[in-house]
Amino acid sequence: MTGNAATGRLSILGMGPGDPELMTIKAARILRESPVVAWFCRHDRPGHARQIAGDMLPERAKTLRFAYPFTTEIPVSDPAYLVRMATFYDECAEHIAGHLQNGQDVTLLCEGDPFLFGSAMYVFDRLHERFACTVVPGITAMGGCWSTARQPMVHGDDVLCVIPGTLDEATLTTWLERADAAVIMKLGRNLEKVRTALRHAGREERAIYVERATQPQQCWMKLTDMTGPAPYFSIILVPGREDAR
Amino acid sequence: MTGNAATGRLSILGMGPGDPELMTIKAARILRESPVVAWFCRHDRPGHARQIAGDMLPERAKTLRFAYPFTTEIPVSDPAYLVRMATFYDECAEHIAGHLQNGQDVTLLCEGDPFLFGSAMYVFDRLHERFACTVVPGITAMGGCWSTARQPMVHGDDVLCVIPGTLDEATLTTWLERADAAVIMKLGRNLEKVRTALRHAGREERAIYVERATQPQQCWMKLTDMTGPAPYFSIILVPGREDAR
Ligand SMILES: C[S@@+](CC[C@H](N)C(=O)[O-])C[C@H]1O[C@@H](n2cnc3c(N)ncnc32)[C@H](O)[C@@H]1O
Ligand SMILES: C[S@@+](CC[C@H](N)C(=O)[O-])C[C@H]1O[C@@H](n2cnc3c(N)ncnc32)[C@H](O)[C@@H]1O
Repeated sequence: MTGNAATGRLSILGMGPGDPELMTIKAARILRESPVVAWFCRHDRPGHARQIAGDMLPERAKTLRFAYPFTTEIPVSDPAYLVRMATFYDECAEHIAGHLQNGQDVTLLCEGDPFLFGSAMYVFDRLHERFACTVVPGITAMGGCWSTARQPMVHGDDVLCVIPGTLDEATLTTWLERADAAVIMKLGRNLEKVRTALRHAGREERAIYVERATQPQQCWMKLTDMTGPAPYFSIILVPGREDAR
Repeated sequence: MTGNAATGRLSILGMGPGDPELMTIKAARILRESPVVAWFCRHDRPGHARQIAGDMLPERAKTLRFAYPFTTEIPVSDPAYLVRMATFYDECAEHIAGHLQNGQDVTLLCEGDPFLFGSAMYVFDRLHERFACTVVPGITAMGGCWSTARQPMVHGDDVLCVIPGTLDEATLTTWLERADAAVIMKLGRNLEKVRTALRHAGREERAIYVERATQPQQCWMKLTDMTGPAPYFSIILVPGREDAR
């Protein structure tokens, strides 16, 4: 699929939570052979997925850095947010499509796993019917967090709920009451709301806070020992029932 | 920690869903250096985690094969089940502890991720306070399934519920009604019960059945197109809301 006549293949690679050794052998192989490498990032940052790739990114690869049009200037609840993001993803997809149409393979790097709250899903949705596409799963942020913090999460009949911290407090509380085990993602400015919901659900005591798991600055602690703001790269874990030993 | 005077280190490795290339670079490195390698399996099978390791398992490694005392002879609901399994895990842990005490490092192989419904959690619970222990996360079965079946799972504010098919039908239905996205594991003989619960929850049409993901015999299809029994290595995916494109 890499000749001039044929179109290229899109490879969407899960890069894992931060430690480059947590890339899969498959992702590392495809990355090393990539003529064109793309990733998303904040306008003022190099990009987490790019950092994980490090010097595995081939020196002669053409790079496509897609900077999000905004970070927090437009609230997610504003209808303008969805419209502007959809336009942004349309443009990124067309940019990638241009290379694929020229017969070049394109590799899109994603933090964690591409299909779990990943921006790559929006590119996949737009291109997978037009081009050959490979999706390589990655170690999720939550997987990085629970192994780092040494928290066995789900035994036996436990149900695990993966919950975005962006939900409102009442909805968060309801989920935290019924989940056997829970992972709360997208903390950042949602931390105090999540803390209140955990308290209302009677789960605050068991909650573990994990920051930048598998990265050099990683740390974790009981949520009740944690003060101060949470960065974007943080998660709360509520392990499942313990009676199944 | 590998000298004669010191005790050994226990490394618990997630081996991923089946494709050996979906091992992480870290798991592969530790495996290749392991003097003692252990895994769980059915008494009549070589063991899935062992199969994934293939010839990465060092030729001179001592191997410990822990065969479960039974498969389906004692129902999980029988109190005798928990007692017999606890005794079995006690014995496995002591066997591993013997090597660690002699200063030998031991590597325990696990399918998928060790801390998501993995037997390795029972060994970890018994040994982590006595010995140095490393836990390496693995690509989960569900991650292997959703990338194979090309199903972006969770966008935006979606909540993902990971549900064992061993729950009773009414409980399954309740979870499937409230989940935005769902993964149902441990299908096997639970398939028809799960199918009924999905129908009652109005989710049967969107459900995707995935079998032996990332293994040579992998297949997937709409659940409504699937007939016949499900093997142990199968999962059902219900992707989240589609309106977030
Ligand atoms: C948009 S989601 C992307 C999730 C990713 N696709 C995955 O598979 O885990 C971003 C969230 O992942 C979590 N996250 C990512 N990397 C992390 C890390 N190294 N430590 C803790 N949390 C992390 C944070 O909760 C962050 O807000
Ligand atoms: C005891 S759980 C172990 C889960 C594993 N620790 C993980 O992280 O995914 C076993 C269940 O995982 C699922 N499973 C494991 N490997 C699979 C595969 N390759 N394809 C589909 N399902 C799989 C099946 O639902 C099976 O019943």
